[in-house]
Formats: sequence, C-alpha cells, structure tokens
Amino acid sequence: MDKVLIFDTTLRDGEQSPGATLNRTEKLQIAHALAKLNVDIIEAGFPYSSPGDFAAVEQIASEIADTTICALARATEADINTAYKALQKAKKPRIHTFIGSSDIHLEHKLRITKAQCLEKTAKMVGFAASLVSDIEFSPEDAGRADRHFLLELVQTAIQAGAKTINIPDTVGFITPDEFSSLIVFLKAQIDPQIVISVHCHNDLGLAVANSLAALSAGARQVECTINGLGERAGNCALEEIVMILKKRGDLLKLRSDVDSTQIARVSHLVSNLTGFAVQKNKAIVGANAFAHESGIHQDGVLKHRSTYEIIDPAEIGLKTNKLPLGPRSGKHALKNRLAELGYALTEDELELAYKAFKDLADKKKDVADRDLISLIDERQRETVTETFFSLESLLIACGSGLPTASVSLFRHEDKSSLRGSALGTGPVDAVYQAIKELVGIPNELIEFSVRSVTEGIDAQGEVTIRVQYQNRVFSGYGTDTDILKACAKAYLNALNRVCQLQATSTQVTEDQLVIGERV
Amino acid sequence: MDKVLIFDTTLRDGEQSPGATLNRTEKLQIAHALAKLNVDIIEAGFPYSSPGDFAAVEQIASEIADTTICALARATEADINTAYKALQKAKKPRIHTFIGSSDIHLEHKLRITKAQCLEKTAKMVGFAASLVSDIEFSPEDAGRADRHFLLELVQTAIQAGAKTINIPDTVGFITPDEFSSLIVFLKAQIDPQIVISVHCHNDLGLAVANSLAALSAGARQVECTINGLGERAGNCALEEIVMILKKRGDLLKLRSDVDSTQIARVSHLVSNLTGFAVQKNKAIVGANAFAHESGIHQDGVLKHRSTYEIIDPAEIGLKTNKLPLGPRSGKHALKNRLAELGYALTEDELELAYKAFKDLADKKKDVADRDLISLIDERQRETVTETFFSLESLLIACGSGLPTASVSLFRHEDKSSLRGSALGTGPVDAVYQAIKELVGIPNELIEFSVRSVTEGIDAQGEVTIRVQYQNRVFSGYGTDTDILKACAKAYLNALNRVCQLQATSTQVTEDQLVIGERV
Repeated sequence: MDKVLIFDTTLRDGEQSPGATLNRTEKLQIAHALAKLNVDIIEAGFPYSSPGDFAAVEQIASEIADTTICALARATEADINTAYKALQKAKKPRIHTFIGSSDIHLEHKLRITKAQCLEKTAKMVGFAASLVSDIEFSPEDAGRADRHFLLELVQTAIQAGAKTINIPDTVGFITPDEFSSLIVFLKAQIDPQIVISVHCHNDLGLAVANSLAALSAGARQVECTINGLGERAGNCALEEIVMILKKRGDLLKLRSDVDSTQIARVSHLVSNLTGFAVQKNKAIVGANAFAHESGIHQDGVLKHRSTYEIIDPAEIGLKTNKLPLGPRSGKHALKNRLAELGYALTEDELELAYKAFKDLADKKKDVADRDLISLIDERQRETVTETFFSLESLLIACGSGLPTASVSLFRHEDKSSLRGSALGTGPVDAVYQAIKELVGIPNELIEFSVRSVTEGIDAQGEVTIRVQYQNRVFSGYGTDTDILKACAKAYLNALNRVCQLQATSTQVTEDQLVIGERV
Repeated sequence: MDKVLIFDTTLRDGEQSPGATLNRTEKLQIAHALAKLNVDIIEAGFPYSSPGDFAAVEQIASEIADTTICALARATEADINTAYKALQKAKKPRIHTFIGSSDIHLEHKLRITKAQCLEKTAKMVGFAASLVSDIEFSPEDAGRADRHFLLELVQTAIQAGAKTINIPDTVGFITPDEFSSLIVFLKAQIDPQIVISVHCHNDLGLAVANSLAALSAGARQVECTINGLGERAGNCALEEIVMILKKRGDLLKLRSDVDSTQIARVSHLVSNLTGFAVQKNKAIVGANAFAHESGIHQDGVLKHRSTYEIIDPAEIGLKTNKLPLGPRSGKHALKNRLAELGYALTEDELELAYKAFKDLADKKKDVADRDLISLIDERQRETVTETFFSLESLLIACGSGLPTASVSLFRHEDKSSLRGSALGTGPVDAVYQAIKELVGIPNELIEFSVRSVTEGIDAQGEVTIRVQYQNRVFSGYGTDTDILKACAKAYLNALNRVCQLQATSTQVTEDQLVIGERV
C-alpha cells in the first residue's frame, strides 16, 4: 500500500482567503495542531510577502521538528533567499518555488516568453537547490498549460534539483478525467524517484475528486487545507481526502499517516481562528455529517445505524454520550476532560480555564465538550493576542426605542479607564460605535456572525467579527452567554490585533501587497 | 450534445436534513423557483410520509404545469396509491418507487430474500405503471449491492414498466471509478431507451464527482439539491453539476437546460427558508466564490481577472456595480430593481414591500440588492405563515447587569395584547423566555444564528432560529437592523409555524415518523 504525502497549506493558501488573516501566534497554534494531526508537510507561509509571514514561518520552523516545514517563493532570487532565511532553524526545510506556465499567465502576468520561463526555472530552482536539498516546484496554472511545454518545464526543474513536482489546477477548471490523463502523461516521462504532487481548487466543486483522480494516476502528494479553506471556493479539503484514503484505502491501495481522530479538533480550531464557519452539510466536519449529532432522534435511523452510516464519529475524534460537566465538577474533572479533548494546559492556564469554566457553569447547568472547546479556544486566542484594551463593563438598552450602548474600557498602556456611550442602528452597531470612539482606530466593520455553541436555551453565543483596517481584514472572536458581550469581546479582540500590527510591523510595501500569488 | 435531465430533490431529500423542515407554502415557493430555474423534474415530496407532505405535493402538482412533478413511494400499494392521489392534478406526473437492494438492507431493514425483493418490485412497479406512464425505480443502497442481483432487479423493474432507473449511492461510500464502472456495466445490458439516473450522497465529499463520473459513463439524469442539502453531508449540489456542464460541456459533450442566472436567487431562498447557511468557501454560491464579492480589492487580482476567474458572477445571476437604492428612491425604482432580481410582486405586495423598504432606507443610507432579497424573503415568509402572534414592542437591557427583556405581543385570535418580562442568561435568552411565557407553547430553542446581510456598520442582521416542538423542528427567520428584534421576529415566525401545524394537521402516525426513508 503506497503512502500518500499530506501537504497542508492552510497557513498559506488557506490564509489567502479574503478575511481569514491570522496573526503569528495563531499560525503557530494551527501549526502545532497540524503537527499533532501528523501531516507530512506544513506549508507555513510565503516569507517574502510580508514581515509577519516571515516571522511566522521562522517561528514555526524553530518549534516544529518532526514535520517538514515548507516556505513558498516565486522564482526570484529575493523570494528564494527570504524563504531560505525564514527556514534557517527548520530540521526538515523545504522551499516551494513556482512560475506561471499557461499561455495566459506567461503573456498577461509575467510577460515573458516560453524560453525565458525555462531559463528562469533552471536558474532559480538551481539556486534554491544550492540552499536546501528538499525543493518543490510548481508550474502555476498547469491545468491550462500546453502539455508539451509543461513537460519541458517540469524536466527543467527536475534537472535543476526539484524533488517534488506539484501540478496545480490554479483556477479550478479541470475535470477528473482530464487531470488523470495529464498526470499519467507526466508520470510516464519523468524520473520515478520524483514525487508528483497536486494542488486543486474547488471552483467547480471538484477539488477532492481531481486530487483523488491524480492519486489513482500516480501522484503521491496532495496539497490540501483544513475545512477546504483557500482562495475563492477553496482547496481540496484535508478531512475529505484523508477519510477517503482511510475508508477506501483497500480499494485504492493507498494510505496516509494522518491521525484522523484529530480532525474534529483541528477543524474547530481553524474555523474559530479564521472566522470561517463550516456549513452544517459539509462532508466529514459539518454538524449534520453524522445524523445523531443533530439532536433529532428518529427511531428508524437509530435501529439501523450500520445501514446508513459509514463513518463512526469517534474516527474523527468526536466523542458522544459523555456526561457533561456541571457547576459541581472539580478542577481535576475539567483537566481530565480537556486532556481527552487534546488540550495540554499548564497549571496556570488550567487555573484560568477553571475560573472561566466555573463562571460558565454557574450560568449554564451542563457544560458540554463543545462549550469547553470554545472556552479554551477563546482563552488561547486572548493570550496569543497582546491586550491593548479590555472590556470593563457594558450596558445596553434597545428594542423599540433608540439602541444605546455604554462602555467602559481599560487601556493597558496607561492603565486608564475610558468611558463613553453611543447610539446605533441596532445594539451591535451601538456597541461597535461606542468602542470605536474610545479606541480611536479608524476601521470598518465588514461582517459579524453569531452562532450558539451548544443546543438549548442557555447556549453560549460564539461571535466572529471582521473589521477592515487600511487594506487588511482582521477577525475577532468572543464567546459569552450574552451575545452582545460576546460581540464587544470579539470586536476588542480584532482591535487588539490591529494594535499589535501597528506596534510590531513595518509598513507593507506596494510590491508585497500586489504579489498575493496563488498556486 | 446530449441533454442531461436535472432532477431536483431539494423538497424531498433536502427537506430530510435534520432541522430543514419546510411548511407547505414554503415548499410551494421553492417549487416555483425551481420551475423558473428550469429543472426538468421536481421531486416534490413523499406523500405517504405525512399529511403535510401529501398536501404540498398536491398543491405543487396543481400549480406547476411545465415541469415533471415526481412523488416518492416505497414499493407498497398504499405508498404508491397515495403518491398517485397527490399527483392527480399534475400535467406531467412521475411516481418514483424504491426498494432496498444491498444485502445489508435486504437482511437488516426489509428482512426479505432476494427472490421476494424481485417479486415485490415486479408487482409494485407494475402497479405504479398502471396508474401513470412515467415511472422511476430506485434500488436503494445500490452502491453496496451485488452487481448481478442489481442488474436482475433493474431488468425486472424495466419489464414491469419503469422508464428511468435511478442508481443511488445511499451512504456516500462509492468512488468515481467504481461508480463509473457500475454505470458502464448496467448501461451495456439494459434497453438504451431507458434513462439511467444517479443519486449520490456526499459523505466523503464525492457526490458531485460521482455524478459526473456516471454521466461520462452514460447516465443522463442527475438527482441533486440546491446548496447540496440532504441527509447528513447532503446530496450532489445542483449549482455545481450545472456549472460544470455549462463551463465544461464542450469537453463532456453534455448540457443541461437549467437557467444558471437563477442560481444565486434560488440558493438564497432555500438557505433562508431552511435556515441552512452556505459556507463562504462553498463552490459557486459561497460568498467568497468570486474574489471581488469579498470586499477586498487587491490590485494584482483586479488587473488580471481573466487569469484567475473562470466564472462571471452574472452567469449565476449576481449583478455587481449597481447603484444602491436609498431613502429618496421611489416605488417605481424599487419595482424595477425587484423585477431585475426576479421578483414579480402584486400591487398590494409592492405597497407593503415599499413600506418595509422605506423603513430600512431611513436607518441605512444604501440599500443593496442583498438587503432587498432579505427583505422580500422575510415578507414572503411572513405572508406564507399564518400569523397567530405578532410583536408589538420590545425593550431590552443587558450588558454587565442582569439581561432583561420586556415584550408586548398581539394575539390575533382574540385581538388582545399580552405583556411580560423575563430574565435570561443573555439578551437572546431573555427575549426567548419572555415570548415563550406569553405564547405558552412548550418548545426548546435548538439553535440560532445571526449574519449581517450587507457589509458596513449599519448592516441588517439576518436571524435564523430553530425550535423543537414535540418530535419536530421548526425554523424561523427574521431581519432587522437590531439583531435582538430580528431574534424576536424569527422566534415568533417559528412559533407561528408551530401554531399553524397545531391548527391544521392531524396527528402524525408512528409509522409515518419511522419511515423517513432515504434513497
């Protein structure tokens, strides 16, 4: 049974989703979760694109030893050099360099001839290979490239030192049959030692299908993201391709080394940190993917579970039929439950978590696993973002009258309390206006969404908010049994991230804003 | 170029999603939208399963003349007879009957032998064919059935009068290669006049891929749902398979007659009425599916749109760069814009819509197309649900103190005002408790979610709420610039639907609750 390498690009292509911006410590959190999930390669970022991305790749490379850490670079000396520097501390570094290969990309984007493209590839792959031994090369938009030129380009990269050749369907246009035929064609002509990788986009809903077709045709690496995040309609969903290999591996004669019991947890973490909710009817990780998760019990289904269900929720790490924790549960019980959920907290962290847990348990009789996951994710998100402003108190009046919010904030810089009130078109807007005025950072609320974490009337509200500051989008996350308080927390979380950027990062250059490349 | 028949089962398999329950008038609304989308067959429901389903199929059959209306029935006389009665007024009626075909279904669910299965199929398909000429037969769980028995079963159904043979992958377990090989096998042996249909589930994320593989292998009907709704991870998404046929039809030598410019509107309607949100990175209909819809403008992308985008948003009916309407826009402007969006309102409806529009435009400078769609969808949802209770006024105080809601409701039955207040764990809970006490219907809040309809600080909140009453789940929908008012509206909308059920429907029988069959 051949092994398929799972190359996770949640932190690179996934983070390119408009609005999914992650800060360095959040990226690090996801990288550790991916390492625990046991993916083979983590594409940690695109170091040349911004100082923040550089720092994130650098820190991930220094902290994660057992997984290959990959950095993206265009086929230029500056890009490759920067990627190399960011990977200095990596135990298993990989540089992933790419260049456009379709006529439309060569003519309209790069404005170079095919001969120039070949020359640049030979030179730049050679340069990268002089720095590290593990080189991946991608001919961008390969799905629309001329097949014979594509082969020539790929052979050039291999001769220059590329060990992995990644074939991207950059625009998500290809069909499984076409992609299979392309992979068969390439596979037949290149050195069998070279790993063929694929990177599929989901514009027509075929990213997983195309990846699977390519594996059957001889590819042995799949680039994918948690929850199928990525530009536009996203990439191949890691959880789907992994579960296909797990459930149908016997037929396919393929396997991966991913620990599927980590899937539910990583999916929730990524969804919370990016603010990208997973729809109920999403395969594998949607709330309805397993009938009995829905809270609806139909006799007919319960009697014949094996007739309708092919995946046991425990396979992706969802435990059921557990006794929920409650107001009388002790710290030890909380610690055990958190350990079962995959969280390893220090004593200090546990102390804080226990305080938050008791607060919640006082308001809510039963604290379910999902409540705990939200609680810990929020706390982790708070601790990974430096706090510039925090919420002291909040008063809201709304309904048929004028929606009004009065807010008191604590400014950590000078330890002062700021107070103010504002009217809004609704209570969320009032909270937003009051906080905006106090904080004094020009920004625009782009989106907010609220979900209840658990079923029942005393559910916690989980709020994700996105604000735009200059050219960038920042997300914020907050939970509370009071959704308006959760909104205030989420908004402050987003603004603290803006403050953090102002405090640490240098101005992003025009070039860096424009590159926003996609493979 | 061969035509692919698009068989929409949003109203049958889609409505089986836990929590997606639709009432009769909502089903009718969706059916009309599907007819306008120009699907070939609408599976309107499963008449034997409940009196409500019967009535919905009956009304859809009487109102929609140009589309084939299909009703589902198990292979029993009572089911088929009930389906036939519900279809009495249909211009183009189809009965879709099914029986388990895999060993696991025969042994554990039906407890019959293969011989008995064949006998029952011959008899029941024959019975159905004596009632209407257009008969579809499905061997349930065909994906796991013995291939030779499957062929024998299918041949039996054809001899008995089935014109369409639908091969379902009931548990979403099959791979595209397996499914292709199965369809090739069946196609080679059965009468070429018979249409082979496929019905794929998305448990492993392969529903669209399997449908496409089957089409390439000779199937000519695809069963699908809007937004990929359906049991568990859902069915093949109509919008994805239709856009694949549209964009890659030249290669596939296949086409459909669906009017793709209706896709965005139907997707939004179904999402609102069922309360199933579409995730941002969903192919075709997700908010991020088109980069420039996201509000983020990156120079690099804007310069080279053709290099990265394969679908023009206008192809699915999303218009952009329109001047928004505002407080000074007249009724005529509103009417024109609504007509462009595909709404045909009567003068009375327009009058009400204009009032609601002016209300909104007073709070919000710019009223975008998405605001209008929400507004009209909410009004339509209100008018299709009989009103038992409506909101008179609402006052909320929350924040750092005790969340409190005071509510005044108007009870239409006796034209009385009911007033009360309640504390809650948060403001939503307080609103919920206050209303629950006044209305006096025992129910449980299962879920609520809030989204902002448009970008910007004065966005409208769109609230979907789900409550459980006895064994059933009812969804409610409300919009307002005040999310708590939207919550109150949504909750009352759900409770009005419970009252409507109490007022009109007879008790659902145990048998009917249990059958909840899936194909």
